[in-house]
Amino acid sequence: MDVFVYGERRSLPADFHEFLTVSDTAIVSIDLHQGHLADTPDCPCPAPRAREVVEGVNRFHAAARALGIPIIHIKSVVRSDGSDDVNGIKSAWRYVFPLYVGPIPNSDQHAIEGSRWTQFVTEVADEDKVVQTKKRLSAFYPTDLDFLLRNMGVKRLVLNGCMTDCCILCTAFDASNRNYRVITVRDLVAGTNDELESAALKIMSLNTGLVMDSQDLIESWRVRRQRRSA
Amino acid sequence: MDVFVYGERRSLPADFHEFLTVSDTAIVSIDLHQGHLADTPDCPCPAPRAREVVEGVNRFHAAARALGIPIIHIKSVVRSDGSDDVNGIKSAWRYVFPLYVGPIPNSDQHAIEGSRWTQFVTEVADEDKVVQTKKRLSAFYPTDLDFLLRNMGVKRLVLNGCMTDCCILCTAFDASNRNYRVITVRDLVAGTNDELESAALKIMSLNTGLVMDSQDLIESWRVRRQRRSA
Amino acid sequence: MDVFVYGERRSLPADFHEFLTVSDTAIVSIDLHQGHLADTPDCPCPAPRAREVVEGVNRFHAAARALGIPIIHIKSVVRSDGSDDVNGIKSAWRYVFPLYVGPIPNSDQHAIEGSRWTQFVTEVADEDKVVQTKKRLSAFYPTDLDFLLRNMGVKRLVLNGCMTDCCILCTAFDASNRNYRVITVRDLVAGTNDELESAALKIMSLNTGLVMDSQDLIESWRVRRQRRSA
Amino acid sequence: MDVFVYGERRSLPADFHEFLTVSDTAIVSIDLHQGHLADTPDCPCPAPRAREVVEGVNRFHAAARALGIPIIHIKSVVRSDGSDDVNGIKSAWRYVFPLYVGPIPNSDQHAIEGSRWTQFVTEVADEDKVVQTKKRLSAFYPTDLDFLLRNMGVKRLVLNGCMTDCCILCTAFDASNRNYRVITVRDLVAGTNDELESAALKIMSLNTGLVMDSQDLIESWRVRRQRRSA
Repeated sequence: MDVFVYGERRSLPADFHEFLTVSDTAIVSIDLHQGHLADTPDCPCPAPRAREVVEGVNRFHAAARALGIPIIHIKSVVRSDGSDDVNGIKSAWRYVFPLYVGPIPNSDQHAIEGSRWTQFVTEVADEDKVVQTKKRLSAFYPTDLDFLLRNMGVKRLVLNGCMTDCCILCTAFDASNRNYRVITVRDLVAGTNDELESAALKIMSLNTGLVMDSQDLIESWRVRRQRRSA
Repeated sequence: MDVFVYGERRSLPADFHEFLTVSDTAIVSIDLHQGHLADTPDCPCPAPRAREVVEGVNRFHAAARALGIPIIHIKSVVRSDGSDDVNGIKSAWRYVFPLYVGPIPNSDQHAIEGSRWTQFVTEVADEDKVVQTKKRLSAFYPTDLDFLLRNMGVKRLVLNGCMTDCCILCTAFDASNRNYRVITVRDLVAGTNDELESAALKIMSLNTGLVMDSQDLIESWRVRRQRRSA
Repeated sequence: MDVFVYGERRSLPADFHEFLTVSDTAIVSIDLHQGHLADTPDCPCPAPRAREVVEGVNRFHAAARALGIPIIHIKSVVRSDGSDDVNGIKSAWRYVFPLYVGPIPNSDQHAIEGSRWTQFVTEVADEDKVVQTKKRLSAFYPTDLDFLLRNMGVKRLVLNGCMTDCCILCTAFDASNRNYRVITVRDLVAGTNDELESAALKIMSLNTGLVMDSQDLIESWRVRRQRRSA
Repeated sequence: MDVFVYGERRSLPADFHEFLTVSDTAIVSIDLHQGHLADTPDCPCPAPRAREVVEGVNRFHAAARALGIPIIHIKSVVRSDGSDDVNGIKSAWRYVFPLYVGPIPNSDQHAIEGSRWTQFVTEVADEDKVVQTKKRLSAFYPTDLDFLLRNMGVKRLVLNGCMTDCCILCTAFDASNRNYRVITVRDLVAGTNDELESAALKIMSLNTGLVMDSQDLIESWRVRRQRRSA
């Protein structure tokens, strides 16, 4: 089976069962909501490249559900009075991202509780789970994700969503620090641009776990399931 | 004053006082110990490029001490019975980093409590502080750093050390998620290689805070101090 | 001004400004919702003694709002699929509390997301804040309360609600461990019974901070505010 | 097998395997060090009642080691410059405990790193583990205990040490909130006085897990082990 090591497609040696075993695996899909994906001028925190992974993520999630793998959708939600962001201590990206891209109109509306910017663009099935107190770059802090994963007995996390070089990368760090085995799905994440997306995937391939394509991962899971049933 | 935005040296606009104010600032120096820096074949987790920042870090710390800015040295230490790494749940890098660089001889000795691999190469002054329960990539988890910073009333962190694309980057994410204002010192961090070091600095310049050179930062602090005394 | 030390009403010495200063204080009101307070046979986790503090809590909150002190209402909410309690790792109280009180009918419905059991009985004003991912005994874990408090710049917490000898006591421990100055409002908390309520207040008076009556606290705040305005 | 429910010795019903299974159990022994136990006038934070459990704790630990159950000794250690307590934000007990017991001479020396006050009075075997960044009332925050337990695969915690009504109780809350199954060893913990010790045990018996005597627990473990070997 193939993985990407420092951007190069290679065959994975044996002894990676801890990452690839199907049981106790969960998928964590990060921030595929209108606040990043809306194709309108008032999108508060645009991640246009991530619109291209939505269809693939939906297919991947459908295949995972068929294998009994739970899916956890994460979304950023901040209190509508701004107390935990713009009217409290502002997120760092609000200071520095505009130095690169210029002013971000409507960014104050990003992730506002109750607004349409917190609606998922991807399909959320009844049996899926939602974590909705992400407020900064990580899916782990300050949320109940780690608590939920413990309760579910999860040991392996598979990450998709946006953006590869901030929330995905930060979550991959947090997950591996907490001893979860992490796989980042190369074709189902999207970054700020090609350069940082590629670099973030290289960093994850050296430090946080495996980087794989969705087809390879689904195929690997199916083979393992069949082998067990045989 | 100049900062680096996406790798480009640029003049910083006003309104970054939250990052640059001298009071309530602390320096966090990460993993500049023998386990990464020893120039011997048995160095358990070699980061040879980081040897080149040691002298600069020492000078920077001396200048900071003269300004009354506290310095916190972080080191990785794991229990000598291996219970929190090689004999427990192994760090992810132990699986995937060798896919890129090949086998790392002696890596099992990395950060072993009581070994010489946990000795700092940089100068540690009597008034400096040490955090010594780093066990994965972050200086925050599972350590008492956040607790210490609260007790000290710190609001601003300045990061140096190694490696730019893993422990520095991960710590910058964790710090900014916890609402600390973060400055990464461009010339006092060292990464796996030029490509990932440069990419990690770009990522930090967009998401976690400012990226600056040490001379510029020291100069900025001196000006602010003098202005206040005037 | 009077406090309760080990159950005895006494005059507080000076030097407790850190606890009593009005600025950077927030009120944390714990679990005053239908799941504990409903006076019906299907109440999933009855805390009938707490019904008696509701009116006083409402009055206290109104007085606090008039002084500009923010109010944070905490409620227990678990996912409706039971993944983070009854169908995951069950809360410890589900095992041991019935050894004392016998079976608790309908307890599986406790705190179910979207159910009426998560509705507050106390008044929640528009400007109040809500934390709604409490899942065990503490208001801090696994919630975003600490993150919210940091953003608000809060240093002092005033606790009311139920139950004195579990969620209030546990939250007082967590808050003081995190260096918040804690006041527990003696007449606005309710415990399992007189014995444990009294004991929990004694424990808090020795370890986590001050124990005071609501009238004394409001009066102290008013005096401090007037003194400052004078 | 017998447990204590609200202070009353009773036979435990079946279905408590999650608490009593031997595998994945660890003992957490809290703060049995000179800082609490020294029988000298300069003992910085005296817990004289706890001196009476030392011998029993040693015997209990020896029996547990013979069963292969790991032992984790927790001690309070604060930086010698006082930055994380007396010269930072002071522990709450420093304010309020003296309101009850009067001035505590030498309390500033409590838990000072490198001092004799951090030496264990109980026996620490080579194979035991030590957690040494406890700084407030909990063994969990801000320490690496939770991280260590995850690495060890621990699911069940058995608590002994001092004091029943503060650090033991607080740790029992934290452990049960994090989904560990908790047993507090009734005859191997010591509290401030009889009243609060007894009340704290009652609180734990209703909310955090089981309360048992050491002999009963050892006997239960032995029976389970033999049954498995049979």
